[in-house]
Amino acid sequence: MYLNKILSGKNNTPVAVILAAGEGSRLRSKHSSVPKPLVRLRGLSIAERSIAQLLAAGIERFVIVLGYNAMVVQREFERIAKQRHCHISFVEATNWKKGNGCSAIAAAPLIGNSPFLLTMVDHVLAPEMIRDVLAEPLAQDEIALAVDYDTKNVFSLFDLTKVNVFKGRIASIGKDLTTWNAGDTGLFYCTLKLFEGLAIAHKQNKFSLTDGIKECISQGRVRAIDVTGKIWLDVDTPEAFKEATRRIDSVMAKGKEDGYISHYINRPLSNRFSVVLSKTPLTPNHITLLSFFMALLGAVGLSTTNPWFWVAGGIIIQIASIVDGCDGEIARIKLLQSPQGAWIDTMLDRYSDLAIGFAVIFSASQMYDSVWIWPVGFIATISFLMASYVNKEFQIRFHRPYPNNFVNNLKRRDLRILVIAIGAVIGQPFVALLAIGALTHLAVLQIMIKVTYNPSSLTSTDNV
Amino acid sequence: MYLNKILSGKNNTPVAVILAAGEGSRLRSKHSSVPKPLVRLRGLSIAERSIAQLLAAGIERFVIVLGYNAMVVQREFERIAKQRHCHISFVEATNWKKGNGCSAIAAAPLIGNSPFLLTMVDHVLAPEMIRDVLAEPLAQDEIALAVDYDTKNVFSLFDLTKVNVFKGRIASIGKDLTTWNAGDTGLFYCTLKLFEGLAIAHKQNKFSLTDGIKECISQGRVRAIDVTGKIWLDVDTPEAFKEATRRIDSVMAKGKEDGYISHYINRPLSNRFSVVLSKTPLTPNHITLLSFFMALLGAVGLSTTNPWFWVAGGIIIQIASIVDGCDGEIARIKLLQSPQGAWIDTMLDRYSDLAIGFAVIFSASQMYDSVWIWPVGFIATISFLMASYVNKEFQIRFHRPYPNNFVNNLKRRDLRILVIAIGAVIGQPFVALLAIGALTHLAVLQIMIKVTYNPSSLTSTDNV
Repeated sequence: MYLNKILSGKNNTPVAVILAAGEGSRLRSKHSSVPKPLVRLRGLSIAERSIAQLLAAGIERFVIVLGYNAMVVQREFERIAKQRHCHISFVEATNWKKGNGCSAIAAAPLIGNSPFLLTMVDHVLAPEMIRDVLAEPLAQDEIALAVDYDTKNVFSLFDLTKVNVFKGRIASIGKDLTTWNAGDTGLFYCTLKLFEGLAIAHKQNKFSLTDGIKECISQGRVRAIDVTGKIWLDVDTPEAFKEATRRIDSVMAKGKEDGYISHYINRPLSNRFSVVLSKTPLTPNHITLLSFFMALLGAVGLSTTNPWFWVAGGIIIQIASIVDGCDGEIARIKLLQSPQGAWIDTMLDRYSDLAIGFAVIFSASQMYDSVWIWPVGFIATISFLMASYVNKEFQIRFHRPYPNNFVNNLKRRDLRILVIAIGAVIGQPFVALLAIGALTHLAVLQIMIKVTYNPSSLTSTDNV
Repeated sequence: MYLNKILSGKNNTPVAVILAAGEGSRLRSKHSSVPKPLVRLRGLSIAERSIAQLLAAGIERFVIVLGYNAMVVQREFERIAKQRHCHISFVEATNWKKGNGCSAIAAAPLIGNSPFLLTMVDHVLAPEMIRDVLAEPLAQDEIALAVDYDTKNVFSLFDLTKVNVFKGRIASIGKDLTTWNAGDTGLFYCTLKLFEGLAIAHKQNKFSLTDGIKECISQGRVRAIDVTGKIWLDVDTPEAFKEATRRIDSVMAKGKEDGYISHYINRPLSNRFSVVLSKTPLTPNHITLLSFFMALLGAVGLSTTNPWFWVAGGIIIQIASIVDGCDGEIARIKLLQSPQGAWIDTMLDRYSDLAIGFAVIFSASQMYDSVWIWPVGFIATISFLMASYVNKEFQIRFHRPYPNNFVNNLKRRDLRILVIAIGAVIGQPFVALLAIGALTHLAVLQIMIKVTYNPSSLTSTDNV
């Protein structure tokens, strides 16, 4: 009664039931005695990933079904609840060894009357895929199963639960189907009807979740939700574990948002850094600060009049620029994205841009006795701020990001840091500053004119 | 047939029918021989305002019913169609003198089967009010009338068409109702049912729009849409004309968005400028450029070493700051707002900020032989850009404007321009630049810290 109250009404997103009772023996062989939910996958335990991906999709309340090694697994989930600020309830399935249908049924007393999500702890699911499923309202007594029609995306055909979808409804399900057209992703969106199906299967001594679903199918209650193209994987075997890291890593790239330098130089390197850094307890915000202080350190080198310090400073700011990509990457692979994180990253980038420009001008003003060093350097450095400002203003006024086209790329941070770094290494940081400053001002000017006269031509598909 | 095609299917917003057939004799007495739709009201002809307010609400296609002085009125609307890039069709009501029901019925052949808006050319209607009406979907054969329950907002009780609303439906309508609870705003959202009502009234030799509506009321078809609190007015008499200018002027203020200096000094002055400027053909973008070049001219004065030029420069940048409010005000009273207009205004404000900072530093560097003038001045001026940047970044990351609280006000443009202007007038522009620069940096820093640790505390209602 009390639990029901906690689990319903607080908000409109459904509860998610996560089955974490199984032994996971096939994966365990590789990871010795650690229970499967505690095995770490790109910096997160499998348990934490199962919660984090649902949190990222908007779910806030969870029911965990425990079985094998219940105490240890529960402790891990309690740690996660604290760290990720979510509400987790627990229930122990006494007869989980019989089959995962028994685990599912154990959750019934903790569910209210509202629809709920059902998944397994060892399933990697893209948050967008979960959001797609939540976007489809359920009919009364309906069950929806997320399915993937792309059989190439299926990792192990042998382990896959196959489904045959006909006119949007599941006609049959099983590992041994001969006629099938889609894969079962293991993400269910259920009404209480599921428990009825499980109970009927139970009476026939059939104890798997699939058996319960089959009963619901026979009543025509199971709909297919197409999530083809989204990232998902059942992490059951050591091979699947390796594939899971590959698929998780694939979310690191920002895709079309990257500039040329980022795409071809910074990103490939930062991806490697991120894989290493993800194993440490460093958060994305730590990495943001690390990159910021590296850039400041580089600026100190650039502010001297010693060409060897310039070389060091140039190398350090370029490394800082590469590390600057890691915060976002780690946030994406560890599912730790937040508006604050993006905010502090962007703000500190502006201050480090200014510090680098300031350092290069200061250095030049010590070396050359010209009254023009400061004014000209000042104007050049200002362009770095305007370059970012112009994009923010566009986004606010026209409700879409400025397209990542050629001119926009000329004024990006990845390029200007590299140009100044190269300038510093070859002994001409001030010339490099003026050159990239002039280029950046011209790019901003072109954007200002284009937007003023023809903003509708600037859509996100306008990639040159 | 062809016209029907033009008027339907191109987009989802309904057609608006504007009745412009009447003589408008009561207003005309004041404005000699000009037909009423051509009388200018705060820089726009009444005809242009009737189109512009509907355009601002998303309407793109219009049917104008002509009568009195049809040729002259049509020419004016054709000019408007060209200037405001919208599609206007015309129909002449042959028997418009009988009553405005006859004018309305004349539009019938040009309307498709979709719902349409109906209003009179001489009604000032706030675009938000029109949007509110469009947001309410019509039932089949239903007619909706926007009504105002605030009898204080009604300008002339004598001229007002009164309605009695019961349970959301219009129970009776007429100028002479003794029992009534709302005013007829003259904005209708209609299905073709209206023409049936008008035809029935017609047969009984009743020729006013109200007569047709009465027929629809008797069938229980007329719903009331509550638009209490929105600006509207029937501009029928010279007194109503004066009141209309007052109500139009009331949209000039940006309200809660203004800083303290804007609110108490700049805005009261710019409002007066705008009333004068609205009579000229200057567009808001012209005013934006005027303000920008005035600021540059002021910067030239500040860049000298002559204290009298500083005084002139200081006064000019403060006037430019006041004029900077006029572009938005004129855009609002002439219904010429556009994202491009806001974009160019914001971008040029940043460049003029930089020019003013640069000028003050340059002047100081000519007068004092210190190596610290440029670096310190540079850091101070940078704060002006960061002050705006931090708000843009907040809005993008948190999907709401940064609250207009005390700290945010300390870093606003209105204040920094005034401080520098006063500094220039009293002979200390550089000191003023450093002081306001330091204050601005501190304000930005406070915002950065606050957002990083507790962004949810920052909502728009957080006004201090």
